[in-house]
Amino acid sequence: MTAAPPTRIWTAALLVIGDEILSGRTQDRNIAQLASWLQVQGIRLSEVRVVPDVEERIVAAVNALRTTHDYLFTTGGIGPTHDDITVDAVAAALGLKVVVHPEARAVLEEYYRSRGGLTEARLRMARVPEGAELIPNHLSAAPGIRIGNIHLLAGVPHIAAQMLDALTGTLEGGAPLLSETVGCWVAESEVADLLRDTERAHEGCAIGSYPFFREGRVGANFVIRSTDPDRLRRCVEALAEALRSAGHAATPGGI
Amino acid sequence: MTAAPPTRIWTAALLVIGDEILSGRTQDRNIAQLASWLQVQGIRLSEVRVVPDVEERIVAAVNALRTTHDYLFTTGGIGPTHDDITVDAVAAALGLKVVVHPEARAVLEEYYRSRGGLTEARLRMARVPEGAELIPNHLSAAPGIRIGNIHLLAGVPHIAAQMLDALTGTLEGGAPLLSETVGCWVAESEVADLLRDTERAHEGCAIGSYPFFREGRVGANFVIRSTDPDRLRRCVEALAEALRSAGHAATPGGI
Repeated sequence: MTAAPPTRIWTAALLVIGDEILSGRTQDRNIAQLASWLQVQGIRLSEVRVVPDVEERIVAAVNALRTTHDYLFTTGGIGPTHDDITVDAVAAALGLKVVVHPEARAVLEEYYRSRGGLTEARLRMARVPEGAELIPNHLSAAPGIRIGNIHLLAGVPHIAAQMLDALTGTLEGGAPLLSETVGCWVAESEVADLLRDTERAHEGCAIGSYPFFREGRVGANFVIRSTDPDRLRRCVEALAEALRSAGHAATPGGI
Repeated sequence: MTAAPPTRIWTAALLVIGDEILSGRTQDRNIAQLASWLQVQGIRLSEVRVVPDVEERIVAAVNALRTTHDYLFTTGGIGPTHDDITVDAVAAALGLKVVVHPEARAVLEEYYRSRGGLTEARLRMARVPEGAELIPNHLSAAPGIRIGNIHLLAGVPHIAAQMLDALTGTLEGGAPLLSETVGCWVAESEVADLLRDTERAHEGCAIGSYPFFREGRVGANFVIRSTDPDRLRRCVEALAEALRSAGHAATPGGI
């Protein structure tokens, strides 16, 4: 049996639109959440940018990222208030008009029927770049938006999670990047040569070293990544064996 | 007394170098940490990028960000292992050689005297772009690095924090961006017009709206930002009064 040819790698970028992240007021949770979700879809998160709520900054980042990755996701700025300018900025980046999406309008009308009615501010949440599709949001009705390869998600992490649920399985991806972790109570600097040599001897595998200091002792987790399960397994075994030969017990799964 | 003329705004960018962030394995803590620290220095975090541990991606981001902001910070990739390539990438971006810094070498020699000696791998942590200064790290000896307007910090958040402590008060900044929060148990869509009108009536102030859903009720925190303390106070008072007039109790300091 010969190894399968390397498959195409699908990539995504994330644009976080958020004065609240840049001010330090809010700890971002969407980067890790999207990264984990993308892994399962066989898509690699390849870049993240965080920019302020300023239209020209959003436009520039959207155009830089949508053309260099298979997919672009944005989080934040799709609510009903004056500081929610993501739809306008993405439309401007694409040279599209902003229109009210009839289905989004209907969903919001239904949702707000018992909640004070669909005001002009609430209707803002039905605005989309012309030609866009909706991403359902069963939590608070206001939908996410998909236009071309761009996906506009909510900034509130549990609402963004709902929208990702709705997108699960709808985006084409490739072979997922697999990873295994080997932990070791050793200073990474003691085994730096061994790590480098093991990586070099295993084509298609990358080894990352993540040191820590816990319970008064230094240690590190070594994360081995590959799209090929056999290569990954061989590299993990070789690394564990090399650590043992150097007198360090290796903990499968990490510490 | 007339108002002081608007002062120059100092800006910074952060480049997070980290496969571990892009894979979702690690939740970033450095964005919020640096953002809060910069606020106190009177410097505004204006952009963040996260790129993988790939030299050309780091070089491109360093050159894009160092020329468009007063300061650039990087986190990650300054340890002793083969995947620590930040020093080489920053040197390449600046067209500089990589050299061993004698003071860093001396600090590491002292630190590792009782810890197995200064091996070649550990000596990697004394490598800097030619002409760089060190940023002390009292926790694990390996220093941060300052070259031009670029500051290379550790990726481990508590070590990065040590390096920021060492930099406190050494960077020129401007008037800090002040902020006040007003909380309200109201759906932001109900008060969207009022928020927009209040912002428009208060030049030099920006109002951000951050909705939440807690204890079965919707609410929002409104964050008012300005570099001018008087304008900020007047805007906060006007917003609280407008909310009260609309029948909503405003909670100073946020909910």
